[in-house]
Formats: sequence, C-alpha cells, structure tokens
Amino acid sequence: MKEILYILLDNYADHEIPFLAQAITTDEVGLRQNPKYANKIVAATMAPVNSISGFKMMPDYTFDTIPADYAAIVLIGGYGWQAPNADKVTTIVANAVMRGVPVGAICNAASWMASKGFLNGIKHTGNGLDQLKLWGGDNYTNEAGYVNAQAVTDGNIVTANGTGYLDFAVEMLRLLENDTPEMIDRYHMFFKMGMCEIMAMYGGK
Amino acid sequence: MKEILYILLDNYADHEIPFLAQAITTDEVGLRQNPKYANKIVAATMAPVNSISGFKMMPDYTFDTIPADYAAIVLIGGYGWQAPNADKVTTIVANAVMRGVPVGAICNAASWMASKGFLNGIKHTGNGLDQLKLWGGDNYTNEAGYVNAQAVTDGNIVTANGTGYLDFAVEMLRLLENDTPEMIDRYHMFFKMGMCEIMAMYGGK
Repeated sequence: MKEILYILLDNYADHEIPFLAQAITTDEVGLRQNPKYANKIVAATMAPVNSISGFKMMPDYTFDTIPADYAAIVLIGGYGWQAPNADKVTTIVANAVMRGVPVGAICNAASWMASKGFLNGIKHTGNGLDQLKLWGGDNYTNEAGYVNAQAVTDGNIVTANGTGYLDFAVEMLRLLENDTPEMIDRYHMFFKMGMCEIMAMYGGK
Repeated sequence: MKEILYILLDNYADHEIPFLAQAITTDEVGLRQNPKYANKIVAATMAPVNSISGFKMMPDYTFDTIPADYAAIVLIGGYGWQAPNADKVTTIVANAVMRGVPVGAICNAASWMASKGFLNGIKHTGNGLDQLKLWGGDNYTNEAGYVNAQAVTDGNIVTANGTGYLDFAVEMLRLLENDTPEMIDRYHMFFKMGMCEIMAMYGGK
C-alpha cells in the first residue's frame, strides 16, 4: 500500500491535515476495509513534533528515512516554514515534482513553495498574492499564474490558502483517485454544508 | 494558566480538535503572547493514542493523573466511545458537571453522553436524534431537549454533531471567554466563509 507523506515542521497547523487524512482511512460507514493509501508523518527528527495548538505528534519517518516510493507529499502549513529545517524539504519536493508524484502545499507551505521557485510555470494559489510575493521575492516570477481560489490544482501540484483546508483535501483526493468523483463530491458537501443542512435537504431532521 | 483537557480515545476523530485548540493558542497575528489557556491531551495511558487517520498523538495526562482544577473538558468523537475505556471517563465528566466546569462533547462523544444520562435535563444535539436514542437506550430520557443544530450550548455543556466542528469550537470559545465576542465571531466567519470570500467582501483579491 502506497503512503501519503505529511511533512510537519515545528508549530504546524493542526487543522490542515485531518480532512485529507481521514478521507483516506474512512468512508461513509467507518474505517475502510481496504484503504488505498496509508497516512504517514514525516518530521525533521523522530522526536514528537509540536503543533500550533501545543500538541505533540509522533513521526513515522524523518526527512532522511522516507521511502523511495510514495503516493504523495503533503506540506502542512504553520509557523515552521521560515526556519532552516524547511530547506531540507526542498530536495524531497524537487524529487517528487520531477517524478510527477502529487505534491500538496497549503498556507505558509504554499508561500514556501513560491520561495523555492516551485510555483513558477503552474497555476497556483496560497495565502493571497501579497504573501506569495513577500515570501517568494526574486524566486517567485509567476504572478500571472496566481488564481484567487481556496485551492488550485495544476498537473500534480495542489496549493491552497489556510482556510481552504477542505477544498485542499478534495483536490488531493481527486488527484489520488482515492474514491469515485461522486463519492469525493459527497464527502465535500457533507462537511461544507454540515449534517443539519444535508438532512433538511433530504427531509429528515 | 488553566488547562483545557481533550479526552482522546483510540481512533479519535482528528478534525474535531484543531478549531478549538488553535484559537486558544493563536490570534489573527500568530501565536498568542499571553494565551488564557493551555491545551492538554488526556488518554487512557501515556502511550501515543491513535487517530482515525492513523496518526499517533502524545498524551499529557492519563485519566488518573489529570489536575484537580482545569478550565474545561472536551470529549472528542471517533470510534472509541463504545470500548470499555470510555467508562473511566464517566467519573471525570460527572465531577466537571457537578462543579459547573465547561464540558464539550462532539459526535460519538455526544452519543456517549446520552448513554450516561448526561443529556437529560439540558438542551443538546449530537449526530442526529436517532443516534442519541440508539446509544442512549433507557438512559436517554430527553428527546424533548434535542435541538436540530450543528452545536448547542446549555449552561456549561456544549454538544455538536461531527460536521459541527467549527460551531462546536465557537460555542466553547464563548463559554471560555477566550476572546471578546466580536473576535470570536471574526474567527468563526474567517473559517466559515474562507479567505477568498472575506477578501472579496472587503474589495481585495
């Protein structure tokens, strides 16, 4: 079973992981009998990595021990992307991009992508154009490719702003073909509308 | 600084924690200089507790080592609330309710609350009335108190369905007076509408 690798830096944004990760392991009934992928945490070291909320997540791999083959790389936002550690991720992302492996980057991770030139030549979004220009500096030359949307997919790269956590998940799920397009749409609507609205739509209470 | 205790059982729902927990530690600028509360994880043992996504979270306390005084108890949903471990939580919740300490319960944790009689006598919601009746059996006698809403607060108890994760967070933040009502509303709208809609409203792009 191929693995989805979530890159977490210190002070990662807790809310940017679950809507993708839970759709990988569950369906409408509960835990999937035969999940297509497994979720794995990647951090700088094997020590627990701190979230913005102050929680401590156990890594499965370090930047140096990730498997050679994997289904996708997901760069989770937060306050760690301006620390030196983040530079170690450059090689991993470059390798994934080169091989056409799906790469997702949300919030400050999208800004970091701009600063490494990964957003030049593709349609993309992030925490607003100003942030991309601020982080990207001379390495960001693709203002024309900026799209004002919650999440954007171009080829195998998905970018999103920090409030686009659900759209980001949905774009990644489509790219990964984690389920039929109809089931992915249902998952999207379930969380976007919420249970009360959905039930009202079907006449329940 | 008082602590907010998040009770996690095996296979807890990842998405039901961050929107409350991140608002405790951050404001619109970044990490809070003087947070009012600290977030702490409570589990059956000090071993990492597994999420639905397959992630491993480090606990700060066990059911037996929680502090005598705390700001709130938050029962996170997932697939662990029918396992025997959940019974150990009964005493903790009973104690909090008795002392008027805020208690939050979302998704299957709200159903569990029904099964222990904690929802009798208060307005409440959960994963639909059918689920509350199914889990609650003879211990759930308050069908009349069921409210068809994403999240409901009555006194010091907040309940929500699993898709009501944001409303649940907002109700808890209000109860905890984590910020001014206006700032809590802004936080709510930021995630409910998303950055693109918010910026369009203010004429940005």
